[in-house]
Amino acid sequence: MELYTYYRSTSSYRVRIALALKGLAFTAVPVNLLVPAGGANRQPAYLAINPQGRVPALRTDDGDLLIQSPAIIEYLDERYPQMPLLSQDLATRAHERAVASIIGCDIHPLHNSSTQNLLRQWGHDDTQVLAWVGHWISQGLGAVEQLIGDQGFCFGDQPGMADVFLIPQLYAAERFKVSLADYPRIGRVAALARQHPAFIQAHPANQPDTPEAP
Amino acid sequence: MELYTYYRSTSSYRVRIALALKGLAFTAVPVNLLVPAGGANRQPAYLAINPQGRVPALRTDDGDLLIQSPAIIEYLDERYPQMPLLSQDLATRAHERAVASIIGCDIHPLHNSSTQNLLRQWGHDDTQVLAWVGHWISQGLGAVEQLIGDQGFCFGDQPGMADVFLIPQLYAAERFKVSLADYPRIGRVAALARQHPAFIQAHPANQPDTPEAP
Repeated sequence: MELYTYYRSTSSYRVRIALALKGLAFTAVPVNLLVPAGGANRQPAYLAINPQGRVPALRTDDGDLLIQSPAIIEYLDERYPQMPLLSQDLATRAHERAVASIIGCDIHPLHNSSTQNLLRQWGHDDTQVLAWVGHWISQGLGAVEQLIGDQGFCFGDQPGMADVFLIPQLYAAERFKVSLADYPRIGRVAALARQHPAFIQAHPANQPDTPEAP
Repeated sequence: MELYTYYRSTSSYRVRIALALKGLAFTAVPVNLLVPAGGANRQPAYLAINPQGRVPALRTDDGDLLIQSPAIIEYLDERYPQMPLLSQDLATRAHERAVASIIGCDIHPLHNSSTQNLLRQWGHDDTQVLAWVGHWISQGLGAVEQLIGDQGFCFGDQPGMADVFLIPQLYAAERFKVSLADYPRIGRVAALARQHPAFIQAHPANQPDTPEAP
């Protein structure tokens, strides 16, 4: 498999965690989102892979090109059933997917680079953009805190889909200086993930396109 | 089943289509999102049902409370396998879910009422808000147009998950005066849905909480 990825893209990070949890090897194809240094995602060669010009995209072992991290993660879970990311219980699956959706729909798209760029084009400065980002992260994580369980990972002893979405979102929260002090359950999950090999392997600090430390 | 719904909420509309396609009866519990007339979604009684204060929420026949339309729709498809919303082919499933995610993550959250409200609080006027909404709808639908098939519904003769997400998004596009002229494939799907009983039944014009025509 080939994963079109950017080291600090949280949606790429989700897919990297899912691949690592399942022990799946892949070739990372870095796509530098930074303008003016990169913006490789806006070039015709990449738009032919993903018409949205976003990362990640996955070229499967069967040669299919898949986009959108929620769809890719569901695909990986169906295609490679080892270390399932969803419970067998239908209601629990719905709760796991609800946490994934809160993060994937109601937090991340409100603060990703394209949204921040548009806010800046509209004249908002860095302080305002950070306030915007913090608003959506705090509001979403407040709901996640109420939905996840009170021990282990989000929904049990093993990490699953909710954790795959949550941990990258916490990385973004830290990057954008959003306090996590009000979320003890989330803090517990974060501590477990920091010790877990799959989450370490997938971390933005450990990618082929991670810049040298300044 | 009980569906907490608001007639013109596009995420409620998605779930109503899925229920109708599967021929499932439910009791609609209207939640008036309008402030100051309503804002019932911000009251403690509703926040106990959905800590996000958003619609929809579904109380299942087993008594579970589910939130987040993508999670609810996956649940319905797993629990009630008649009229499946996803193909049997894994790559096609991923394409169907990718279209759902483009709409559910990259379009709708950027223009829903909470986002529009925050833009207005930040001093943007109606013209600017409409431009913001139009930007995200056009960008997302442009990608959807490239991903769906060139006959029938989005991915074949029968409607599925991609259509469940697309048709409500087109309702929102119309409401916010976004032209669909550049999307002939999407236009073809819209024409089919206008004739389909499940899509008609689920339409915002046909709900118990639909206001009388002015």
